Amino acid sequence: MAENKAVFFGGAPPFPISRAVRAGDFVITCAVGDRVFAPEEALYDDHGRVVSTGARLQNLTFAEEVHATFKVLADSLALAGCTLADVIDCQVWLRDARDFHELNRIYAGYFETNRPVRSVFRTDFMFDFRIELKVVAYKPL
Amino acid sequence: MAENKAVFFGGAPPFPISRAVRAGDFVITCAVGDRVFAPEEALYDDHGRVVSTGARLQNLTFAEEVHATFKVLADSLALAGCTLADVIDCQVWLRDARDFHELNRIYAGYFETNRPVRSVFRTDFMFDFRIELKVVAYKPL
Amino acid sequence: MAENKAVFFGGAPPFPISRAVRAGDFVITCAVGDRVFAPEEALYDDHGRVVSTGARLQNLTFAEEVHATFKVLADSLALAGCTLADVIDCQVWLRDARDFHELNRIYAGYFETNRPVRSVFRTDFMFDFRIELKVVAYKPL
Repeated sequence: MAENKAVFFGGAPPFPISRAVRAGDFVITCAVGDRVFAPEEALYDDHGRVVSTGARLQNLTFAEEVHATFKVLADSLALAGCTLADVIDCQVWLRDARDFHELNRIYAGYFETNRPVRSVFRTDFMFDFRIELKVVAYKPL
Repeated sequence: MAENKAVFFGGAPPFPISRAVRAGDFVITCAVGDRVFAPEEALYDDHGRVVSTGARLQNLTFAEEVHATFKVLADSLALAGCTLADVIDCQVWLRDARDFHELNRIYAGYFETNRPVRSVFRTDFMFDFRIELKVVAYKPL
Repeated sequence: MAENKAVFFGGAPPFPISRAVRAGDFVITCAVGDRVFAPEEALYDDHGRVVSTGARLQNLTFAEEVHATFKVLADSLALAGCTLADVIDCQVWLRDARDFHELNRIYAGYFETNRPVRSVFRTDFMFDFRIELKVVAYKPL
């Protein structure tokens, strides 16, 4: 039966990934930033950390980048028939812990009623991001 | 039907999060440290890493902090009708990799029979913690 | 009934963990590197980061280490009756972001059709690894 198989949605070439997957009553997304970069353009510092992943077409504030990342996330969920209202668990990664307070202000607007459980950690990204998001949604068919 | 909706438990103001969520047969907790800090009190070094998040009322050893964190985690699970015995997957983050050995000694006491799968990584926290924990429990109703 | 209980598979002494767990239709693995180290042998730098976790019996290229790590992962899944073809979500951690491109080339060969959602972050490991993997598989019985 169809419900005994996972269903994969979307892709992000050249990366070998799906954007979302449904398995039973759950939908899980890829970790996403606010855009797709060409991996060949990446520059690293002498510790192997990303300095740049290609020219950004515009300078974004942190708030703009957060909103753009939520847009990419919502698009991924939509491929699987879900919205942010279905999210139960949200993983957040920041490049700079000082963005935590502004993150919380913006984040609260996306989850006003049923607030997902969450983790927030500082990390080093593969790309020139300030934030990445990855969620689990629960939506029985 | 009730079982077609996720159920959210608890909160941790001023943060826009729930402490636990049930979705189907699974319960997932927030990542937790041993206490809640006021985000306004955070101090950062010039790399954006947390130096302090307010005066700690007492100095804790690492072992005391681990036990206190398991207490917060167990309280979160209890909100959703679960205990540590229901945990199947445990994510652990440490501020200092040298605490890994003592972590294992303490951790083994909390999971003596059915031992969850696990990940342990060093990370930079949003708060003045040495450890955070986040778990998935499985408990069909 | 058996299906109302999680089933734990394998272990990795001296660590207090299982290698995989089945809960309902899902199987979750431990985070794995390419081998098990003796924690007593670990050496740290003055920031608490792992420098060495004992003599490696051989020098491996990054590609060899990735393949060896996938072998350990596949072995963990096999304990629970699953294969890499059942994987829906894959978490990847790298010690050095510069390995990301080679990771993608190798990774694509393991997931040619149904490509899991994924996250990839740089982190500091508890052991002398360049990569760790942890997956969720979906396989209704």
